[in-house]
Amino acid sequence: MTPFRASAALTERWEHFDFAIADGVATVTFNRPDKLNALTFEAYADLRDLAAELPHRGDARVLVLRGAGRAFCSGGDVEEIIGELRKFSSTELLEFTRMTGAAVRGLRELSLPVIAAVNGVAAGAGTVLALASDFRILGASASFAFLFTRVGLAGADMGSAYLLPRIVGLGRATELLTLGDRIDAQRAYEIGLATEVVEDDELGARAEALARRLADGPAQAFGVTKSLLVREQDMDLAGAIELEAQAQALLMRSDDHHEFLDAWREKRRPEWKGR
Amino acid sequence: MTPFRASAALTERWEHFDFAIADGVATVTFNRPDKLNALTFEAYADLRDLAAELPHRGDARVLVLRGAGRAFCSGGDVEEIIGELRKFSSTELLEFTRMTGAAVRGLRELSLPVIAAVNGVAAGAGTVLALASDFRILGASASFAFLFTRVGLAGADMGSAYLLPRIVGLGRATELLTLGDRIDAQRAYEIGLATEVVEDDELGARAEALARRLADGPAQAFGVTKSLLVREQDMDLAGAIELEAQAQALLMRSDDHHEFLDAWREKRRPEWKGR
Amino acid sequence: MTPFRASAALTERWEHFDFAIADGVATVTFNRPDKLNALTFEAYADLRDLAAELPHRGDARVLVLRGAGRAFCSGGDVEEIIGELRKFSSTELLEFTRMTGAAVRGLRELSLPVIAAVNGVAAGAGTVLALASDFRILGASASFAFLFTRVGLAGADMGSAYLLPRIVGLGRATELLTLGDRIDAQRAYEIGLATEVVEDDELGARAEALARRLADGPAQAFGVTKSLLVREQDMDLAGAIELEAQAQALLMRSDDHHEFLDAWREKRRPEWKGR
Repeated sequence: MTPFRASAALTERWEHFDFAIADGVATVTFNRPDKLNALTFEAYADLRDLAAELPHRGDARVLVLRGAGRAFCSGGDVEEIIGELRKFSSTELLEFTRMTGAAVRGLRELSLPVIAAVNGVAAGAGTVLALASDFRILGASASFAFLFTRVGLAGADMGSAYLLPRIVGLGRATELLTLGDRIDAQRAYEIGLATEVVEDDELGARAEALARRLADGPAQAFGVTKSLLVREQDMDLAGAIELEAQAQALLMRSDDHHEFLDAWREKRRPEWKGR
Repeated sequence: MTPFRASAALTERWEHFDFAIADGVATVTFNRPDKLNALTFEAYADLRDLAAELPHRGDARVLVLRGAGRAFCSGGDVEEIIGELRKFSSTELLEFTRMTGAAVRGLRELSLPVIAAVNGVAAGAGTVLALASDFRILGASASFAFLFTRVGLAGADMGSAYLLPRIVGLGRATELLTLGDRIDAQRAYEIGLATEVVEDDELGARAEALARRLADGPAQAFGVTKSLLVREQDMDLAGAIELEAQAQALLMRSDDHHEFLDAWREKRRPEWKGR
Repeated sequence: MTPFRASAALTERWEHFDFAIADGVATVTFNRPDKLNALTFEAYADLRDLAAELPHRGDARVLVLRGAGRAFCSGGDVEEIIGELRKFSSTELLEFTRMTGAAVRGLRELSLPVIAAVNGVAAGAGTVLALASDFRILGASASFAFLFTRVGLAGADMGSAYLLPRIVGLGRATELLTLGDRIDAQRAYEIGLATEVVEDDELGARAEALARRLADGPAQAFGVTKSLLVREQDMDLAGAIELEAQAQALLMRSDDHHEFLDAWREKRRPEWKGR
C-alpha cells in the first residue's frame, strides 16, 4: 500500500459492481445483465471512489472494465436514474452530473492503463466510460450509441464532447454525439474508436492478454505514458516538451530502465519491476 | 423572436445569396452559378450578419448551406475580390480578413447545427465555409481544394489551420493546406472530412432529410451539443467536464427531457418541442 | 543571409550527419548505416543547432531528413547514449532530455516545410523526428516503432505524447506509445501518420520532387502556413482566426500574391519569388 494514505480506510467491498484483483490486474465487472448493466446512482459513486482509491492500494497495475452477459453497459437506468432525476432540485441535479463527470475524470487521471473490454452494447454513459479508457477492445458484435439526444439531453455528457473529438476527429464526433446513431465494431475500428476488434468468444482472452502484458511490463513507464498523454491534450508544444524532458529524466533513474541496459548487455530479457 | 433584441431591425432581405426559411430549416443558397458561386465582399458581409441575426429570429433550428448550379462555392472571386484587394491599404486588408474570419466564427458560434450540402467544387473560402459547418454531405462528384497557396497566400485562412487539423489530423491537414491539391469526395470521407457521400442526384433529398430530422428533434439539446463541441476544443479536461455537468443539469429540467420520460412510460414516441 | 544575424558565425561543417544544400533544398542525411543511423549526443546537438541556424542562412526553403543505407533512424544508440546516461546525475539527465526536446521544438518552429523521407526503420527518437516533420513520405518497407517503453522509459519522449495524438487521434496514439509495437507503412498511411507510401526505389525521387515543388513555389506562403498550423494547435478559435486575419493581410501585400494576379490577368503561370 502507498505510504501516502492516512486516516481513510480502503473500501472493503464494492457493492455496485463486481471487483477482483489478481496479479496486478484489477477488474470491474458491471453485473446487472438483465438490465444490460445499466448504471445506478451507487454504481457511479463506486466508480468515482474506486478511481481515487485504486492507486493507493499498490497492488493494481492495470484496470479492466467489462460487462456481464450480453452488454457492456447501457448507461443510466431509465427508471432508477432518469425517473429519480425528475424529482430533483437544480442543486441536486448538478450534484449528480458532477458525480458522473468525476468518475470519468478519475479514470483519466488514474496513473495506470484502463482497458475497456466491450462485449456488446455500450450506450449513453456506457460509451463515455469506454472513451475514458485507454484501450477499447471490442467483440465483433459490440456497438456504440451516444444516445443522449435521444432522451432530450445534450450529446455532451461526462466529458464526451471533449474526449470523442480528440479520438475520432471533430467531424465524426459531431455526427455521433448529435445524432446518437448506433455504430458497429468495424466502423468503430475504422475511425480509431476501437483499438482492436476480435471475435466475440475471444474477447475475454484478448483483454486478459493485454492486461497481463501491461501488468508484467515496466508499469511506471506505462503509467507515466498515460498521464502525459492525458495532460498534454491540454498543454502547448513548449510546455509539453518540457514536461516530457522532466518526466523522462526521472525515468532514466528508474530500476526498470537500468534493468533494460543490464539485460541488453547480458543478452537476456529484462525482468521488469514496475518502478 | 427572441425577447433579447431591442433597437436593431432584422434584415428584410439578404441580397447576396438566396435565403429561405421553412418549418425551422433555414437555407442559404450561393447563387452565382456562372461564377461557380464565387464570393464577393457583400456575400461575406451578409454571411457574417446572418450568423449573428439568425438565432434572434427564433424560427430557425438548423441552417443549410448549398450552391446553385454545378459548384458549391469556388471562394473569393479573382477580379471582384483579389483584384480589388490590390488597391487596399494594410488597414483595409485587415478589415477584409477580419470580416471573412468573422463569418466563420459566426457559423461556429451559432448555437444550431449547420449542414453544408456540397454539390460540386468547394475551393478556397468555399472549403472553409464547409469546415465551419457541423455536417458535410457531399455529392459523389464534389471535391475540396484548399487552394490558397496557389494564389500566393497562406493555407491558413479564415480559421482553416485551426479547423482542419481538428477534423482530419495534423498530418493530413498540413498536406492539404500547404499544397492545395484537389481531393475528391471518397477521399474526403475516408479521412473524416465528409460526413457522408451520396449520389449527386440524391444530395438535395439527403440534406433535406437530415435538416428535417434536426429541426423536428430536441433542438435545444442539439444546440447545446454543438456549442459544447465548439467550446471544448479550447478547454482542458476538468473544465470541459464541469461545463458538461452544468449544461446537462440545465437540460435535465428541459421540457424535452421530461417529455422523453413521459413518452417512455406511456410507450409512445416523444413529441419534441425543442426547448 | 538574413540581416538579423550579428556576432555568431554560421556553422562551417555539420560533423554528425551529412548536410547539403542545393537550389533551396537543404538535406540532412543520417549517415551511420552500420548502426541503422542511431543518434549520438552530438547528432542531437547538431540537429538542435541546425534548426536554429537554417532560417538565418537565407538559402533554404525546405528541409529534407533522410537516412543512409537501409534504415531511417533507429533512435538513440544503446551504448553511446543509454550506456552513458547511466553515469549521469539528475541535472545532466535533464540537460540531455531538454536537448533532445529542443531539437524537436526547433523543427516545429522552423518556418519552412520539413519532409521526412523514411526509407526503412524509424524507431524511438527516429520516430519523433518524423513526427516533428510536416510531410512523412514512406518507402513501402518502412516502419515505425515508438519503442520507448521497451527500454523502460515513458512513451512520451521529445514531445511524442503531444504530437502523435494530434496526428492520429488519442486512441491510436495511446496504443502506439504505450506498447511500442511496430507498424508498417500501409498502416501508417491508413491512420494519417504517413503522408504517402511509395515503392522503396521511388522514395528518393518522390521526396525530391516534393522538395522541388515546395522550394520553387511561394515559399513565404508555405512558411506562414506551417507556422500557423504549429501555433494554432495551441490557440483557441477566436485567437486563431485573428492570427490568420493578421497573417493573411500581410501576405496580401507580398510579391507572390501580386504576381499571382498579374499572371492570371496575363494568362500565364506565376513566377514565384518566395517573398
